[in-house]
Amino acid sequence: MVASRDDELVLLPLGGAGEIGMNFNAYGYGPPEARQWIVVDCGVLFGREASTPGVDVIMPDISYLAERREDVLAIVATHAHEDHIGAIHYLWPVLRCPVYATPFTAKLIEGKLEEAGLKERVRLHSVPLHGKLKLGPFEIDFVSITHSIPEPNALAIRTPLGVVVHTGDWKLDPEPLIGEITDSNALQKLGDEGVLALVCDSTNALVAGESGSEATVRRALTDLIGTLKGRVAVTAFASNVARLDTVAKAAHAHGREIALVGRAMHKVVEAARATGYLADFPRTVDEEEAAELPPHRVLYLCTGSQGETRAALTRIAAGEHQNVSLGPGDSVIFSSRIIPGNELAIHALHNKLAGLGVEVLSAEDHFVHVSGHPARDELAQMYRWTRPRIAVPVHGELRHMSAHARLARSLQVPQAVTIENGHMLRLAPGRAQVVDETPAGRVHLDGLVLVSEGAGLSRARRSLSFAGMIAITLVLDGKGRVAADPAFVMEGIPEPVHAAVRDAVEGTIRRHNAKRGDEEKLRETVRRAARGAAEDAWGKKPVTRVEVVWV
Amino acid sequence: MVASRDDELVLLPLGGAGEIGMNFNAYGYGPPEARQWIVVDCGVLFGREASTPGVDVIMPDISYLAERREDVLAIVATHAHEDHIGAIHYLWPVLRCPVYATPFTAKLIEGKLEEAGLKERVRLHSVPLHGKLKLGPFEIDFVSITHSIPEPNALAIRTPLGVVVHTGDWKLDPEPLIGEITDSNALQKLGDEGVLALVCDSTNALVAGESGSEATVRRALTDLIGTLKGRVAVTAFASNVARLDTVAKAAHAHGREIALVGRAMHKVVEAARATGYLADFPRTVDEEEAAELPPHRVLYLCTGSQGETRAALTRIAAGEHQNVSLGPGDSVIFSSRIIPGNELAIHALHNKLAGLGVEVLSAEDHFVHVSGHPARDELAQMYRWTRPRIAVPVHGELRHMSAHARLARSLQVPQAVTIENGHMLRLAPGRAQVVDETPAGRVHLDGLVLVSEGAGLSRARRSLSFAGMIAITLVLDGKGRVAADPAFVMEGIPEPVHAAVRDAVEGTIRRHNAKRGDEEKLRETVRRAARGAAEDAWGKKPVTRVEVVWV
Repeated sequence: MVASRDDELVLLPLGGAGEIGMNFNAYGYGPPEARQWIVVDCGVLFGREASTPGVDVIMPDISYLAERREDVLAIVATHAHEDHIGAIHYLWPVLRCPVYATPFTAKLIEGKLEEAGLKERVRLHSVPLHGKLKLGPFEIDFVSITHSIPEPNALAIRTPLGVVVHTGDWKLDPEPLIGEITDSNALQKLGDEGVLALVCDSTNALVAGESGSEATVRRALTDLIGTLKGRVAVTAFASNVARLDTVAKAAHAHGREIALVGRAMHKVVEAARATGYLADFPRTVDEEEAAELPPHRVLYLCTGSQGETRAALTRIAAGEHQNVSLGPGDSVIFSSRIIPGNELAIHALHNKLAGLGVEVLSAEDHFVHVSGHPARDELAQMYRWTRPRIAVPVHGELRHMSAHARLARSLQVPQAVTIENGHMLRLAPGRAQVVDETPAGRVHLDGLVLVSEGAGLSRARRSLSFAGMIAITLVLDGKGRVAADPAFVMEGIPEPVHAAVRDAVEGTIRRHNAKRGDEEKLRETVRRAARGAAEDAWGKKPVTRVEVVWV
Repeated sequence: MVASRDDELVLLPLGGAGEIGMNFNAYGYGPPEARQWIVVDCGVLFGREASTPGVDVIMPDISYLAERREDVLAIVATHAHEDHIGAIHYLWPVLRCPVYATPFTAKLIEGKLEEAGLKERVRLHSVPLHGKLKLGPFEIDFVSITHSIPEPNALAIRTPLGVVVHTGDWKLDPEPLIGEITDSNALQKLGDEGVLALVCDSTNALVAGESGSEATVRRALTDLIGTLKGRVAVTAFASNVARLDTVAKAAHAHGREIALVGRAMHKVVEAARATGYLADFPRTVDEEEAAELPPHRVLYLCTGSQGETRAALTRIAAGEHQNVSLGPGDSVIFSSRIIPGNELAIHALHNKLAGLGVEVLSAEDHFVHVSGHPARDELAQMYRWTRPRIAVPVHGELRHMSAHARLARSLQVPQAVTIENGHMLRLAPGRAQVVDETPAGRVHLDGLVLVSEGAGLSRARRSLSFAGMIAITLVLDGKGRVAADPAFVMEGIPEPVHAAVRDAVEGTIRRHNAKRGDEEKLRETVRRAARGAAEDAWGKKPVTRVEVVWV
């Protein structure tokens, strides 16, 4: 295929530019009026009580692509982390295109589609490692790389206007223990061929040096577990299969039986085995069996490293787990990083464990974890291999992407561009530049309902959490007079403020009945009187709503 | 004074045992039925949107002492941080006792009392450094120590049953730059004399090594600022006067004029000067003057290191500051730690600055800060000096206090006790043990109103933030029939759920009118119908309240 005169290659990030998570990048090729699209990754973010109360999952608003659904050729997943595949089963019904991924990733996507009742409808294709794919004007090579999950891939996306290397999440690990090492030959060859743009992970662009190898964690954890006497529980991300293997082998080395605790642990180990990994994973015992063993003969591998409310370790710490209990002399190792924003939840969990007399060991004071993302020396190595004309930092907050762009410039990359979700970046022809701004935003999974962030629902609830709510119902007769005492509901407001609000509203009503006036005006006057009284008595203005009933 | 047969010495922590902040420790002496009390520190915690929405300030519930107000001899403040003095002006009216502090601390307490309209009523006594105090059975020596604020003091509390060393917040710094070095002679002499109990800061009990000296920060910041070209803003805790001095001198060394930005900066510099510190602080320029200077000739010293909503740096980053604006080529240095829980707010601020093209330098990637609390080697040194019979870790979460107690035991302290707020620990005679559990809890400053945490107000608002609110008003006639359409207020609930709730309620009302029944039953039936309909349609159960109006 050859480029026609009007062809352009564009990148449209709808997630992941400005946040770590919710990765969603669309590449478009063709003349502006007839572009064909592929989507790389389709992930979620998790809601937070402070910023998005009541929201479990956040995903990108993809209405721009929804309108061009016929031209969306495929979703290609780089690897199986939730922030890369977690939105597929929510958003697939909008795009209805085929999905491509390597076997382990495909296995986990399949599980999600099955739970969502979509398995029969989605054409999910398993691509072998080092596989190739042709999708319209795009030819894609899967390039093996290392990360904290099996089968991470960079994608070399070839188009008539040049090659884009989309790294996905990666690090350099000479001994990843599970899976292949980074295919530096392939990357170097791409560099020799000429890379138009490197679209690259920015997570650790503020971290000096290198991320370190899983093999060093294995040695350290093996030593550490050897020093522990009572029961040991280790919590890690279930998707970090190499770490699970590390922990299991470290346990085995010290004569401890391994019990998996938590649904995700079982699910991932099953998917890994089904796709050929963990062939020599030590045999596991079930929770009941483990409970019968002497303390120094058992190791629990648990979910809950982020202090998640319903995870195994949280229930163990609360003394609410059916089969696992820990106490004085026992230890818990947090073999994971703290995802920013989870500090208080994780430390609350540490405190609960400390309250049981359990000793807590974590990356804060022991070497029990390495990151899955490239620190600055690794980024520099990637730029040396690929030598792109354009650097496009993604997968980061603005502070990470800015630092990444500065690093790329310092490495003499001719152009480094920081972009925002919804900004369409033309990569070729010509100098990279933003050529369009499409609607971009977030969609919340709020309970069972998908709601646009713009609708302001969780923002409205944040207002309630700050100053509570007053609901007042007025009863009017046919002549517009107040015919009964109003009804008040006040929630989240201190008791002494209630009387002040009632008095103010009743005074307003008396004046209204003396003078009469229209309903709308009465409602607004009552609303203001109530809010004003609350503010005087309390210093805060509750959300206040006034309804009218006619009798 | 000699101990009588029934005398006991007890420690009653009401804040700071289980959290870093809200320090409040009462020491009682005498027979159980007639103890006299002194209070060491009286601080606050700050509310958080996720856990205590709408709450600005949290302080201890001191109702136990309030009932014994006549026997509370004094509040003694160790130093001027908010978590040690911030509740004095709220709680003094409950205790109405004299307050003692060294001059700088007293100056800042005085400012708070003045703002609260209490200055004339409170007997606030300034104690000289190394001063002594006699309060009933207690004789107190102020022992100079180092920390991140001027005039930190440990207190040696002498009683007929032994000496307690209460460290307050401290570290070891051979070159604190402002104020005295730790009076190791005094501590060692106390150790020689025999220390009953060491009640000691646990903040950094999980941190290996030493905290490091302010002098090394001064050298590093001076070097770093020398490498920067455009405008420079540095944010630090205003109370860290040595750091303000460090930044000002580093600026001066590179020919930059210093402008203080933010109310707290001016207040602290003023208090420091009034009490004899900062005599050679470089002259400052005001914000307007600074705006006229060439970029490389100015340095702003700003409040806002924790991403606080109304602080100077937050307004600068939002482009909303009257006199200060930053842009490409400019730099901001965060010369402070991240207080746990503030990560997201601080990183949001970094992102805003990055969005302006400003380079952000912080303790995450540069050496620009040392902690004010003792790491493990410093704790060990303190134990070597004082050699207490009992170690009582305070000023920490359970995880810190547990680690601290383990460390103390490893240093052969005969007894190390972790305590909880409200637990009364008898220190003498005999082995230390909890002898009483008093009511302990928290009081929230919610708007202008003090509310007991136990009243559940902010918890009720958290429920609102999760699933919103439904308020329904039913109108009944004299015969108990529904006489008009009900009024609905639904807030924070997705639109499609509203109709489901209305339909369910209207169906319930029709059945009621057919059969009649009592009001209470109707309310409950309607409430359940509404919540059930919301749960079916949305998967969440809003807070639901039903009121009745009679016509």
